[in-house]
Amino acid sequence: MAYPPPLEELVESFERFPGVGRRTAERLAFHVLRDPKARELAPAIERAVRDTLRCESCGNVTECQPCAVCADTDRDWSQVLVVEEPRDVEAVERSRAYRGLYHVLMGALQPAGGVEPAHLALEALLERLAGGVVTELILGTDADAEGEATARLLLEEVERSGAQVAVTRLARGVPAGSALEYLHRGVIEDALEGRIQIVGRPRS
Amino acid sequence: MAYPPPLEELVESFERFPGVGRRTAERLAFHVLRDPKARELAPAIERAVRDTLRCESCGNVTECQPCAVCADTDRDWSQVLVVEEPRDVEAVERSRAYRGLYHVLMGALQPAGGVEPAHLALEALLERLAGGVVTELILGTDADAEGEATARLLLEEVERSGAQVAVTRLARGVPAGSALEYLHRGVIEDALEGRIQIVGRPRS
Repeated sequence: MAYPPPLEELVESFERFPGVGRRTAERLAFHVLRDPKARELAPAIERAVRDTLRCESCGNVTECQPCAVCADTDRDWSQVLVVEEPRDVEAVERSRAYRGLYHVLMGALQPAGGVEPAHLALEALLERLAGGVVTELILGTDADAEGEATARLLLEEVERSGAQVAVTRLARGVPAGSALEYLHRGVIEDALEGRIQIVGRPRS
Repeated sequence: MAYPPPLEELVESFERFPGVGRRTAERLAFHVLRDPKARELAPAIERAVRDTLRCESCGNVTECQPCAVCADTDRDWSQVLVVEEPRDVEAVERSRAYRGLYHVLMGALQPAGGVEPAHLALEALLERLAGGVVTELILGTDADAEGEATARLLLEEVERSGAQVAVTRLARGVPAGSALEYLHRGVIEDALEGRIQIVGRPRS
């Protein structure tokens, strides 16, 4: 006894989303059939696709073209910080520690979950670097497996493109405000590996 | 910097699904914006809602009305086994251990996740019991927290309705084919509590 084809297709449509397995897709599909409010998702998808813009320069979701950050002539256009998501831009803006521009990938590589290089607006980034204005590309993807894989891919693509740009990445180490005793092993490893000499002769 | 309204609405539409939190809803919404194939979900929802039937008797998803099980005159119409999902019907059918009918709730109570009593086709079940043909209602919701809560709700509603029907539930205990040493504590508790006397006088 299989599902009727329209239900099977709905399950498969949900399954195409990253992180959604067969079981979860079935649960989501059943919810569509039992809760009329859930069906609002269909027009919401259509409206979002129709009525939102991706900034043609940085890829962030925006209401104007280009987005407010890319249009700001007070910012340093020679620096581009690559991040995964719009909320990463928000977090960096809140820190007030950065005055350059961004590139928003809208996700990180997750091949098993259906997020492939083609989804991450890499072409747009390479075109931007080819323009010659950007002198530093800062990799700011998350410090997890997907973010690391995405950073490696970016580095490879930038090198292959021959763009004349310095590529840096955000520092790793002890997060400000934290107590050493509670830190994860990986954090301590990073902090030791990246330690900075303060006094005395350089280690030889 | 908030999301443009159509993106915010898409995020909120995903968030209304059971088990989908804000963070997951954002990830799903970003996927819609970055992967054109994901947008197929919108027409898939509309087709599933338009082109599938819920059996007017048991609530299962079906292509004919009533479904093949409910239309089968060789089955025992006096028994109704209540299950959560279509795949539960499949599992019981594969066992060939049951010849009665079903009632498919299309889920289990999960108030925090947005699955409320109104979503579970309880009215249809009570109407069915009022018909007088059913003499035994077997509770076959899952043996987890949501399934237990759903079974309690069913029992309350059936008692309140005054339906003349015996309510039973599936036995709990050691699953056939298993080794005792690997069983979860709760399984062993159920098996001890439900132990059956084989020889000798009843325990007093």
